[in-house]
Amino acid sequence: MCSDSLQPVLVAGQWRPARAIGAFQAVNPATGEPLPERYPISDWADCDEALEAAVDAAEQLRRLPPDVRARFLEVYADLIDQNAEAIVQTAHLETALPVRPRLLEVELPRTTNQLRQAAAAARDGSWALPTLDTQLNIRSHYAPIGPVCVFGPNNFPLAFGSISGGDFAAAIAAGNPVLAKAHSSHPRTTQAFAELAVEAAHRTGFPKHGVQLLYRLRHEDGLRLVADRRVGATGYTGSRAAGLALKHAADAAGKPIYLELSSINPVVVLPGALEERSEKIVAEFTTSCLMGTGQFCTNPGLVLLLDGDPARHFVESVKERFRGTPPGYLLSAGVLKSLEQSIARLRDAGAELLVGGQALEGPGFRFANTLLCVGARRFCERPEELQTEAFGNVSLFVMSADLEELKRAIQRLEGNLTGSIYSATDGSDDALYEEIEPLLRQRVGRLLNDKMPTGVAVTAAMNHGGPYPATGHPGFTAVGIPASLRRFAALHCYDNVRPERLPKDLRDEAPNATIWRWIDGRWKQG
Amino acid sequence: MCSDSLQPVLVAGQWRPARAIGAFQAVNPATGEPLPERYPISDWADCDEALEAAVDAAEQLRRLPPDVRARFLEVYADLIDQNAEAIVQTAHLETALPVRPRLLEVELPRTTNQLRQAAAAARDGSWALPTLDTQLNIRSHYAPIGPVCVFGPNNFPLAFGSISGGDFAAAIAAGNPVLAKAHSSHPRTTQAFAELAVEAAHRTGFPKHGVQLLYRLRHEDGLRLVADRRVGATGYTGSRAAGLALKHAADAAGKPIYLELSSINPVVVLPGALEERSEKIVAEFTTSCLMGTGQFCTNPGLVLLLDGDPARHFVESVKERFRGTPPGYLLSAGVLKSLEQSIARLRDAGAELLVGGQALEGPGFRFANTLLCVGARRFCERPEELQTEAFGNVSLFVMSADLEELKRAIQRLEGNLTGSIYSATDGSDDALYEEIEPLLRQRVGRLLNDKMPTGVAVTAAMNHGGPYPATGHPGFTAVGIPASLRRFAALHCYDNVRPERLPKDLRDEAPNATIWRWIDGRWKQG
Repeated sequence: MCSDSLQPVLVAGQWRPARAIGAFQAVNPATGEPLPERYPISDWADCDEALEAAVDAAEQLRRLPPDVRARFLEVYADLIDQNAEAIVQTAHLETALPVRPRLLEVELPRTTNQLRQAAAAARDGSWALPTLDTQLNIRSHYAPIGPVCVFGPNNFPLAFGSISGGDFAAAIAAGNPVLAKAHSSHPRTTQAFAELAVEAAHRTGFPKHGVQLLYRLRHEDGLRLVADRRVGATGYTGSRAAGLALKHAADAAGKPIYLELSSINPVVVLPGALEERSEKIVAEFTTSCLMGTGQFCTNPGLVLLLDGDPARHFVESVKERFRGTPPGYLLSAGVLKSLEQSIARLRDAGAELLVGGQALEGPGFRFANTLLCVGARRFCERPEELQTEAFGNVSLFVMSADLEELKRAIQRLEGNLTGSIYSATDGSDDALYEEIEPLLRQRVGRLLNDKMPTGVAVTAAMNHGGPYPATGHPGFTAVGIPASLRRFAALHCYDNVRPERLPKDLRDEAPNATIWRWIDGRWKQG
Repeated sequence: MCSDSLQPVLVAGQWRPARAIGAFQAVNPATGEPLPERYPISDWADCDEALEAAVDAAEQLRRLPPDVRARFLEVYADLIDQNAEAIVQTAHLETALPVRPRLLEVELPRTTNQLRQAAAAARDGSWALPTLDTQLNIRSHYAPIGPVCVFGPNNFPLAFGSISGGDFAAAIAAGNPVLAKAHSSHPRTTQAFAELAVEAAHRTGFPKHGVQLLYRLRHEDGLRLVADRRVGATGYTGSRAAGLALKHAADAAGKPIYLELSSINPVVVLPGALEERSEKIVAEFTTSCLMGTGQFCTNPGLVLLLDGDPARHFVESVKERFRGTPPGYLLSAGVLKSLEQSIARLRDAGAELLVGGQALEGPGFRFANTLLCVGARRFCERPEELQTEAFGNVSLFVMSADLEELKRAIQRLEGNLTGSIYSATDGSDDALYEEIEPLLRQRVGRLLNDKMPTGVAVTAAMNHGGPYPATGHPGFTAVGIPASLRRFAALHCYDNVRPERLPKDLRDEAPNATIWRWIDGRWKQG
């Protein structure tokens, strides 16, 4: 393999030819044509060298004050803003996601906002929950866990990108170097971010090997990577099958791995809500389900209804909207194929096709907006198949004959990131709400009222997580600062350690005026 | 199997005969004789019924105010205090741990103190980190995770007991029912606790099936239990082999499991400290290593020294003390056998026996206080074997020729609960300290100065945890309130949920005057 014709990897602070075992090209989803740059599939030697460098970067980072990583994140965010047009054009070519509003006006500002929030958290230090028992002289805080591998997803090239997104921001802010694996559907976008990150590191004194980039690995090297003794933890966003394989490997080695896997995000629409504002809910649902061609981890892929005239009218209205809305592009041929397979699986299990159901003529990867429907009794007979995630512009309606059927269907739900309940404002659904809320609550990370789940605000109160198999552990969130930082940290306790040897945030005197610390039974600032 | 002659299990709120597949008796370690009561080994049917009841108890608990579980824990603690003599006598019979000071004056008060701290945390609610974004109306907190299985260890029949210890207190305080598996070495002690727990539940309106007890399971049923869909999480304290088997099963099912496994707790004694106060450190080390016949998870099982006259003198003094101290009883024939095997493994790998090394004549299970020694270079050649935990009154000294050897030995250490460094008070060891602290820090949960690791204070600042394989995840602690509660909780977010439907601690108005909540970017009380 002649590596010279391939794009370089970023390892140990250098852009250098990969130890390549193969090559790939990204494909423009709007044309189906490959893009010109050729990217290497790395041999294990690249991982190995990157891990060695990451261990050294982790040591350097432990010695540097938090302000260095805060400034790195801020300068990096500024550089992204300054290069927004170019990044967004590249991401558009590689993903076919619309430039406006999606990439330029929504996802990119979200990305830089998140990096800046992470910078503020790193500088302030409250995220580490410094806890002081001054009487016993025992003190603890969360400290960097070591090199973090980040596997980014296909659907958010910027805000969840392996070198720009939430896991990256959290891992760096917590004090760790990042070894990023690009998603193979948008390598050039990820490479462009890495170029800016290198520049930001250069300008701020951040370790130049604190950010590294590989584009693609053999399956077995991915498994080896997350289990390597030099790795602190891994963040992964993507498909369930690949994520669970990585989890298995990491678990066996005792390495923390944080997964954000598939989710079908059940939405329960109660009859009073439909009688009150059916068309409004139809519009909200359609927008939420078809936005980004449905390629959101919080896409409302399952709608639970109580059968009756309002529900039937609702379904008819959604059908009409789905028919009348031009479908966007899917991210790749793989997404299209997987969508076809998922729909076939749903239909095999008894779901009836209401609208859509087939791929559209090229060029590009498109699929008709699709609705399916199934009875709750059938849903409860084949719960596993009928919860197959159809990643794209698809949703499945589950019709329950009565409350008991609805409750049984909810009890069959797997863990999900979100669950929504729409109810009437006049109280007419309240009795139903009280019956179903406790069942849904236990099965989702975020419970919504009268709102579709697609928006995931970057706020301290967010939980972008949930019970297995939506994630690997129900106690962690991938979005929301400061909690997302603590995923990439180990609890470090200091017992009887002499004052001058303590980390600054655990000394009697606070390191800055804004930090919150739990001191002798109460939160104190500064 | 005639279950009538066997002690009853506590399932679904009833003491009833087990579905038994076998029976066992505890053994008095001081005599080697079996104790009279016969206990059942449960069939899966007992687990199944207990799980069904636990699911119901979890639902009931979610509806009850936190005050109910707080009062339960307090009344339970009071009952334990009132029955202290009887409990301690039973535990003494089953474990041979001394009544005074150990069981009556140290472990039992620690146990009730811990239950009362957990009660206060449950009532106050700050443990759940309620986080409010009032502008976006997004709110989150930690909520009960569901039924918790607790597997208690052999060495702390009270303070880590499956129905009285830290995991139990944390799981209940977080709002979960507990399904306890007694340790087979002290079933009667655990049963006595369960009897008091039933009484406390009766007096306080706590669900009567909120605490359940089985004594022993088939290996495969243990694996099935921690992976069962009805389980929320598991807490396990015990041997590495059994713990890792449970972890494997729980991980595969996506069920959180918190392990506290083996640890050899390295202690580095620097030369300046020895020149300054060798005899004091000899005394501290001997007390720490032989206390409870060394059967502590924080026992100092590895001592790292820089070779030279002070170190040799230190070793000689410890040998003398070890020879002159009468060995206590080991907890069981199994502990004795495992100790013999561990010492054989250490010797096979090159450790030299300095003193002790053999079992003592009966009656009862005793082993001579034992010291071994090995060079650091050899230690680095066979790091795995030479880190074999010898659970008991044993320690291994590692002699380094120079600082480089010492650093290499530390770099070979597995994850441990604790690591201690003794250094001179006059600054003469400071340069050495700075070299080794960063290496040791990354490998332990709690770093100590000038102090042996055996004491584990119940304070918010404690970390009784550490990197794998000391535990399964370096971010959690088994001791210390409130952090230990959050292991048994899931992050629940409420997005746009109507005010009257929110949990009380997430409403604008605080549920009590003491709760701390993170509201719009700052901690506020009440």
